[in-house]
Amino acid sequence: MTEITKPLVVKTIAEFRAAIAEALVAAQEKLDAQARAAAAENGTVVEYTDASLGYVPTMGALHHGHANLMRRAREQNEVVAISVFVNPLQFGPDEDYEKYPRTLEADVELAARVGVDIVFAPEVEEMYPDGEPLVRISSGELGSRFEGATRPGHFDGVLTVVNKFFNIIGSATGGHRVNAYFGQKDAQQFLLVQRMVRDFNHDVTLRAVAIVREDNGLALSSRNEFLSDDEREAALVISRTLALLREHSLNRGFEGIDLDGARERINATPGVRLDYLELVDPNNFNAPTSESERVLALVAAYVGQTRLIDNMDLR
Amino acid sequence: MTEITKPLVVKTIAEFRAAIAEALVAAQEKLDAQARAAAAENGTVVEYTDASLGYVPTMGALHHGHANLMRRAREQNEVVAISVFVNPLQFGPDEDYEKYPRTLEADVELAARVGVDIVFAPEVEEMYPDGEPLVRISSGELGSRFEGATRPGHFDGVLTVVNKFFNIIGSATGGHRVNAYFGQKDAQQFLLVQRMVRDFNHDVTLRAVAIVREDNGLALSSRNEFLSDDEREAALVISRTLALLREHSLNRGFEGIDLDGARERINATPGVRLDYLELVDPNNFNAPTSESERVLALVAAYVGQTRLIDNMDLR
Repeated sequence: MTEITKPLVVKTIAEFRAAIAEALVAAQEKLDAQARAAAAENGTVVEYTDASLGYVPTMGALHHGHANLMRRAREQNEVVAISVFVNPLQFGPDEDYEKYPRTLEADVELAARVGVDIVFAPEVEEMYPDGEPLVRISSGELGSRFEGATRPGHFDGVLTVVNKFFNIIGSATGGHRVNAYFGQKDAQQFLLVQRMVRDFNHDVTLRAVAIVREDNGLALSSRNEFLSDDEREAALVISRTLALLREHSLNRGFEGIDLDGARERINATPGVRLDYLELVDPNNFNAPTSESERVLALVAAYVGQTRLIDNMDLR
Repeated sequence: MTEITKPLVVKTIAEFRAAIAEALVAAQEKLDAQARAAAAENGTVVEYTDASLGYVPTMGALHHGHANLMRRAREQNEVVAISVFVNPLQFGPDEDYEKYPRTLEADVELAARVGVDIVFAPEVEEMYPDGEPLVRISSGELGSRFEGATRPGHFDGVLTVVNKFFNIIGSATGGHRVNAYFGQKDAQQFLLVQRMVRDFNHDVTLRAVAIVREDNGLALSSRNEFLSDDEREAALVISRTLALLREHSLNRGFEGIDLDGARERINATPGVRLDYLELVDPNNFNAPTSESERVLALVAAYVGQTRLIDNMDLR
């Protein structure tokens, strides 16, 4: 059992930068001391390794899916930082920005259990001191499909804030490597962040972490807490349908899949209204071809008033 | 006289990053040695200072205006890097991208005389390996006025490449400060880059450097070399008109300025066609008010086929 120490919770960009810089220096000293001790014990030359930072951007309301991201970051890095920020820019005017769950105290406790070192929980004014940024990021055509079609501007807002976080962090690491962890549930978001990292020359390595599900198959989401008991039951049609598609595809390939039947199955469930169910190549979000390394079944549906997304690998 | 050593000329992002990192480490060691020597000589405690990087983004075809930027960078930083890159993204389809002057050898010589350490001269494929970036930067409403009105997409292209350069550099400095130098001639560009640095949380300090003029008043520009002798003569109406506006403004304030008269004066010059002549507050490019700290007269005009811009402070 590792001991539980509370993470450092910081509110300002300057504090966040300072905390990262300080933690990395301390981690590097510890690594160097361990390397020297090991070399002395074995009578070999000292083999130095570089401390790295694991970063998990979140909107808080942390669940086991986030815990999984943080655990992965903990395993692979000497310093782990998360951000907890409900980013207004990625919510449309009719969306659930105001009622999105905010549970910072519980979030910090979960982060503590996983061993996170730093929690950055800025106010909106800290991130957007001039209100809406004047210079904007556009997610382009790729950001206007699927989630982007139903949520115009959503991905522009996501990229805007992720770009800021990457720059804030990048200037604090003093050359140490950064690994950033994103959930596979937001598959389109992952692809867009990946493209931004490439297009913008961010020096960050992205790590995708698998979806975490309840035993009944429901993909974990902060929005699940909006669901009534009946709605939670109804929502299971989403993951069950994906599982059927996967079974079909593993047995007989994805080409003959009856997507319309699957859509009807979801829509026929009382309280559930399908937004989209499609197959895509997750490397470009175009229709998959026989060349596609991976094929993803993507779904978005309203369960009552709550919009849920899910996806599953078909090969 | 300092000795002239050729700058290191690099073509790839990886080489550029490595050159910056190495140069900063060497510069810091030198600074530290000097600090220790001074402390030993004076019997005082060692006062360490941080080496910084001065960066000058250019499109090459360097002239004395650029030399001025590089000299300023040389004075204020231990390491100086410039980029020489004709960025296709900031040229419109009917603009002079193909014929824009490319004079790398002469550029490197000028950089050597000023004492630049590193010249980064990438090919287009190095900067845009996937062709046009998928994730774009939008300069917004501010980027659609004045230069942006005549050159749609110009500032989006400028910000896209500057953002890339800042990220490439930022990941190589290991926490050392970065000062980036831009000419005042591109006043709207300076404001937009300033906004991007703020909106994107780039850890870069921007330095604006005054316009350099020929003795006759012509603002230096790489595009001046497109001008015939007659056109060079005709082009003088631009700076002379600005100088008259400045004289009027310093004597009687900018409010009573006869802008229409000034516009006619420029347009009446054979071979010269005015694009715009306006007064702005350079902090927001809105119409200046009595509150404006600075008032700028901005001009763009075609001299023959060549489009020139210039500006002058009126207070």
